[in-house]
Amino acid sequence: MPQLPTPALPEPAHPEVDSMLSRRFGKEIANYYSGSPLNRVGFLRTDNTFLSLALRHPSTTVLLFKNLEPLLKSPSELATVTFDDVKSVIGDDPFGRPEADTIAQYNSSLYIPQIIFLGLDERKEKEGFVYREHYKGQPWFAVDVTPKESVTDAAEKLIEKVKSEGLDFSKGRMNMSLHAQEAAIYAEARHLLDWNARNPFCASCGYKTLSVNAGFKRTCPPADIANAVTDTNARPPCATRTGISNLCFPRTDPTVIMAVVSADGQRILLGRQKRWPPHWYSTLAGFLEPAESVEEAVRREVWEESGIHLGRVVIHSTQPWPYPANLMIGAIGQAIPEGETVHLGHDAELEDAKWFSAEEVREALRVGTSGLGEDAGSEYKEGGLRLPPSTAIANQLMTAVVNGFASGSPMI
Amino acid sequence: MPQLPTPALPEPAHPEVDSMLSRRFGKEIANYYSGSPLNRVGFLRTDNTFLSLALRHPSTTVLLFKNLEPLLKSPSELATVTFDDVKSVIGDDPFGRPEADTIAQYNSSLYIPQIIFLGLDERKEKEGFVYREHYKGQPWFAVDVTPKESVTDAAEKLIEKVKSEGLDFSKGRMNMSLHAQEAAIYAEARHLLDWNARNPFCASCGYKTLSVNAGFKRTCPPADIANAVTDTNARPPCATRTGISNLCFPRTDPTVIMAVVSADGQRILLGRQKRWPPHWYSTLAGFLEPAESVEEAVRREVWEESGIHLGRVVIHSTQPWPYPANLMIGAIGQAIPEGETVHLGHDAELEDAKWFSAEEVREALRVGTSGLGEDAGSEYKEGGLRLPPSTAIANQLMTAVVNGFASGSPMI
Repeated sequence: MPQLPTPALPEPAHPEVDSMLSRRFGKEIANYYSGSPLNRVGFLRTDNTFLSLALRHPSTTVLLFKNLEPLLKSPSELATVTFDDVKSVIGDDPFGRPEADTIAQYNSSLYIPQIIFLGLDERKEKEGFVYREHYKGQPWFAVDVTPKESVTDAAEKLIEKVKSEGLDFSKGRMNMSLHAQEAAIYAEARHLLDWNARNPFCASCGYKTLSVNAGFKRTCPPADIANAVTDTNARPPCATRTGISNLCFPRTDPTVIMAVVSADGQRILLGRQKRWPPHWYSTLAGFLEPAESVEEAVRREVWEESGIHLGRVVIHSTQPWPYPANLMIGAIGQAIPEGETVHLGHDAELEDAKWFSAEEVREALRVGTSGLGEDAGSEYKEGGLRLPPSTAIANQLMTAVVNGFASGSPMI
Repeated sequence: MPQLPTPALPEPAHPEVDSMLSRRFGKEIANYYSGSPLNRVGFLRTDNTFLSLALRHPSTTVLLFKNLEPLLKSPSELATVTFDDVKSVIGDDPFGRPEADTIAQYNSSLYIPQIIFLGLDERKEKEGFVYREHYKGQPWFAVDVTPKESVTDAAEKLIEKVKSEGLDFSKGRMNMSLHAQEAAIYAEARHLLDWNARNPFCASCGYKTLSVNAGFKRTCPPADIANAVTDTNARPPCATRTGISNLCFPRTDPTVIMAVVSADGQRILLGRQKRWPPHWYSTLAGFLEPAESVEEAVRREVWEESGIHLGRVVIHSTQPWPYPANLMIGAIGQAIPEGETVHLGHDAELEDAKWFSAEEVREALRVGTSGLGEDAGSEYKEGGLRLPPSTAIANQLMTAVVNGFASGSPMI
């Protein structure tokens, strides 16, 4: 299966939502990478007049990415540039003509740097952009400035310029600790840049596709000026053109991740992968399969990886995870009394899975958390259990369990 | 966006789970298309010895599909055939050699009918198949017998034979009303057959891909015997070969669907699409976007489609939906007092959205439900509100709201 999300960013930043939202059932858990302040106004992505005005507005903020790594001011802060800064790479008005014209004049031999429209920051209503009266705020875009094909020179110059200003691209996600709202904006940009980069061809017909809807759709044009195979520029028929196809839209893989509690409610099952540092454990996780409910996926995955049989399963919260395209669905499950024996022989994914006492997990949440491969806090004693940081939903699930999730009593 | 699921099958069949699972928080809602009795033993999909023995075991059950329509005994029952029946189409031992050999000898000019391994029915332990002691039961497979390329004749003969026995392929999902457990098995088969058929080419390099892992993976072989372009059979490098890529695995699109309750808890917001019959309404729904939590997707989608601003959002249950590949995530959301005004001008998706009283919805759930375009029950009075059947999660969400979901009090 694709890479499973691993615990990552070190900063404990899970924004709490307004108390308004939590009147009766306790607070909603807003995990790291969610909580974006932007209004995506997705229905305006097909409107090139909107996109053209928004991109060129003086208030507009642009994030730069090189090979999917964002430009940073510091490990905890994204760097932003203006439209004028990136004009040399993306042109004076990349949204200047209607999308239908861009598709009709498609030429697969031309390289077009990817631009993503991320949304409007409505908190900046005054200085921001106004469109059709209703839609106000500071426009945010992301641009891929990886030096490539026809933009190599312009992109290299731009990169040189920002580096001379003391900015630099991230060196891998383990070295970033963005504040929560910026992390959410970054996650949107990264997920979409990755999806576009990963899908240059049509899975239905094998021909090259074109990014439209400001990065939120890829279309398979019916003709290609670079097409020298036939007399006309026409391509063979493609199923994605005769109806609406999910292949044209960004992919997000639902993933289940679960804290498993023993039948008596006193122990928590954790597992570890071989490549993790010593003493590291986390909750089990895996991809939801076709035609499964979340609860079924949780029970199947836990049985496959650990041999444990679950009874009750309750969904706790969700976390977008942009490496590359996951929706983590966090749950808490309880083993049935006769199903608590660990058996690692079904699926060979884990090196170990075992039961820990609630006390041990509680203590490790206090003193033993960090990003993978980072040091724990000063109270940690060598040999003690190590756990992922609070930015990982795994940590939130374990915390919920030791705090007595959704019940008045301890544990589950 | 891709087609949104529409309310469909008429039969009220949502299996309740064991009371064991519901000790403290009430029953888990197992929606239609979930609740499969099969153990998928997914880790055995790469083991061709297992697959070969399972497919050819005397107890093995095979579902036939033609253009994604299943062979039926009646509108409520799948027809099953034996391995011997389909041998003429899929060959004597399609899993006879290790997967690595099949990939190494890949020839894109050969047509291979799609076979899906669905799982083991462990309830049939006695008469079933046993593998490595742990894995027991009746093996279930699905086979695509659409008459095509090299299997045209054999497939046509097989179809003639089953038709002579009084069986026939479904004529669209509106004409099926499978019992719940069969519906779940059918959903697994349909989702995977559709995914394989929809993705014959590699989105990363544009070359043809090969189905492996008994239908649960598509791989981009490094060489192709039919490749006449180069001296060797080698293909250009492909990113999906140098690491694990999500492109190789089945796609499932997370979708949010939500019952919206007014701030005073007394009204429910419903919407309708233009193409629906008169008086039909349902809950709002839409695709989760990259880098959103479920709650964020629910709030965004409700605002885009209706202008309503939600505060609290609670996840209710999930439903696999195999048309073609959705995970419906059902939620209940509550409007904030100052955010209850309907505005349809943002996104043009709905023809209407409006508030209904709890009483009207409760009555419509009693007398006005059916599949789209079907008649309601005898108590329905013309002009009354029409709603989707209990097999649709939309119905379950509205039912939960009028029954007072997760609270002792009415509504929310």
